[in-house]
Amino acid sequence: MSETLTLLQALIRRASVTPADAGCQDVLAERLAPLGFKDERLNFGDTQNLWLRKGTQAPLLVFLGHTDVVPPGPLEKWDSPPFEPTLRDGKLYGRGSADMKGSIAAFVTAVEGFIAEHPEHRGSIALLMTSDEEGPATDGVVKVVEALQGRGETMDWCLVGEPSSAAKLGDVIRVGRRGSLNAKLTVFGIQGHVAYPELADNPIHRFAPALQALTEEIWDHGNAFFPPTRLQVSNLTSGTGAENVIPGELVAQFNLRFSTELDEATIKTRTAEILDRFGLRYQLDWRLSGHPFLTAQGELKEATHAAIEHICGYKTRDDTGGGTSDGRFVAPTGAQVIELGPINASIHKINEHIDLADLERLSSLYRQILINLLA
Amino acid sequence: MSETLTLLQALIRRASVTPADAGCQDVLAERLAPLGFKDERLNFGDTQNLWLRKGTQAPLLVFLGHTDVVPPGPLEKWDSPPFEPTLRDGKLYGRGSADMKGSIAAFVTAVEGFIAEHPEHRGSIALLMTSDEEGPATDGVVKVVEALQGRGETMDWCLVGEPSSAAKLGDVIRVGRRGSLNAKLTVFGIQGHVAYPELADNPIHRFAPALQALTEEIWDHGNAFFPPTRLQVSNLTSGTGAENVIPGELVAQFNLRFSTELDEATIKTRTAEILDRFGLRYQLDWRLSGHPFLTAQGELKEATHAAIEHICGYKTRDDTGGGTSDGRFVAPTGAQVIELGPINASIHKINEHIDLADLERLSSLYRQILINLLA
Repeated sequence: MSETLTLLQALIRRASVTPADAGCQDVLAERLAPLGFKDERLNFGDTQNLWLRKGTQAPLLVFLGHTDVVPPGPLEKWDSPPFEPTLRDGKLYGRGSADMKGSIAAFVTAVEGFIAEHPEHRGSIALLMTSDEEGPATDGVVKVVEALQGRGETMDWCLVGEPSSAAKLGDVIRVGRRGSLNAKLTVFGIQGHVAYPELADNPIHRFAPALQALTEEIWDHGNAFFPPTRLQVSNLTSGTGAENVIPGELVAQFNLRFSTELDEATIKTRTAEILDRFGLRYQLDWRLSGHPFLTAQGELKEATHAAIEHICGYKTRDDTGGGTSDGRFVAPTGAQVIELGPINASIHKINEHIDLADLERLSSLYRQILINLLA
Repeated sequence: MSETLTLLQALIRRASVTPADAGCQDVLAERLAPLGFKDERLNFGDTQNLWLRKGTQAPLLVFLGHTDVVPPGPLEKWDSPPFEPTLRDGKLYGRGSADMKGSIAAFVTAVEGFIAEHPEHRGSIALLMTSDEEGPATDGVVKVVEALQGRGETMDWCLVGEPSSAAKLGDVIRVGRRGSLNAKLTVFGIQGHVAYPELADNPIHRFAPALQALTEEIWDHGNAFFPPTRLQVSNLTSGTGAENVIPGELVAQFNLRFSTELDEATIKTRTAEILDRFGLRYQLDWRLSGHPFLTAQGELKEATHAAIEHICGYKTRDDTGGGTSDGRFVAPTGAQVIELGPINASIHKINEHIDLADLERLSSLYRQILINLLA
């Protein structure tokens, strides 16, 4: 059994459902201490964060990831227990195998192999691990980056191990992510009896044309790197439950995933303009989940492209789709951020797994990136 | 203190919240038995119904009403207890004073006065009382009318004591009521992640243009007797509660109050056409509360108009607005149906009341109608 697989199994056994770390960070710190990685913890609230750095010189390559996993869901639906790593049909099954303990194990063995071959490599290598990426994430990477910025410790390249691949390992990398903006809209009307609509003001009726306008708005056309900005209404509620009462209020929640063609302020302004067009009385509360970020070019992307072509034999595709990642906290520091990880088809689902051959190849990919950048 | 007021107080003290009668029908039966009114009970389920008839000949004038009242609401907001009839500022306060125990008391004393003066009057007089008009009403007047029809007992004129007046007693009478049709619409989509809308099908987005079309549809323009048919959406719900999930389903409830320009089948057909225009996958469940009805002319309306002009000194207005009444169960039998009662401003509210002068005058109005029809 390979070192990578053995390490992955040890990590999976630790049932680290957000925000628990269940000892994963200790495993990593102990494993890499002999190679000169200094063990620093920056814990906040109920979140544990690990900063493991070897070397003091620039350039600094950081491997960013999370030790926490999402809950397994109904246990009886798993073919083998989610926290008992199980080999089956050339795959390793277990919660976190693809998202993202496989990547963590792969990077550790890649670093060990790289340092063994290139003990005098240039620059520094670090791992930044958090036990809350899947949850609110308010005490995770965002806080660590603040602390590093505060003491002038700058990252040059940040390789994020989130599972980026679609059909084949390395076929897709993320070169950025869309921003995410949440809104809670309350539309005010006047409650009344259904038989006397002239004495009431039905907020559902008032909102109807505005709802259509919001859902049909063309926010932008995207650009070379981003798909068009999209708005999705996730919740819509109005009514007292009674059939003969016109309600006094309506609440809608919606989310925008936006490209670098727009910013938070512009979206807010345009949304208000749309609503004002329809004479609504309303209140709009916003919450930003993250700004968009993009690494259009640079050494990290080139090194990743080259490694994939070299190890896998095909060209990768630069993508900015899907949800978001903790890379959004690192990008504003000026670091280049690229995401490369296993196939994501089974993440957050029952019977999450990683292909054993992919696991080994992922370690080779990470090792090649280290060579390309620091050898 | 007048006989009418004394009787009204006795009825109000009986806390007959739907479907309770609390002995009100016994009071009426006992009161009118000496005048030759036969006491017949037609109780169904938890509803008590009273059929009190004097005479066997046509034409038959029926006074239709209900002994049940709506709940009082928060007791601490009443200036005097809702079931303790209280005189204050020339009014009688108590739950049911305006809706509609005042009318019942007024009719009883009107009948007593009429029979005393016209002992050889023509035709028959009856009272039809139910203890469930305010609730589901499935075991109330609808069942009594079925029973009467079943034995060939026909009504010629039906005077409904529901509070019809707006600003002055008798300024408005109802010559009919709109139909009421309820719908529950379920729109089907596909649940998914907000960041992957192309893998989902947002039912909120799909429904938006259909919602606008439904709320803006001109159903008809009404006619000489009815205001235009109106649709009101009362409840609208979609969403899992999570901000990052596109829901798989949307539910909307709406109600149509419709005129004699439309019927149930036409409304259903047109609604389906509107929804089909937008390619929705949906399910639509209908529930009819009542068909529209109208008494455009006839002796009962003339007698009522004349009585109001004679007793009040002004012309009344024929109306079909507001909610509905139990008259909808009588109209299909071919009887003429007219509604005349006190001012309705305080019904279903805190501190419901009836003006004492109005109470006496209402009894005079009912007496004059009896004279105009049966003397």
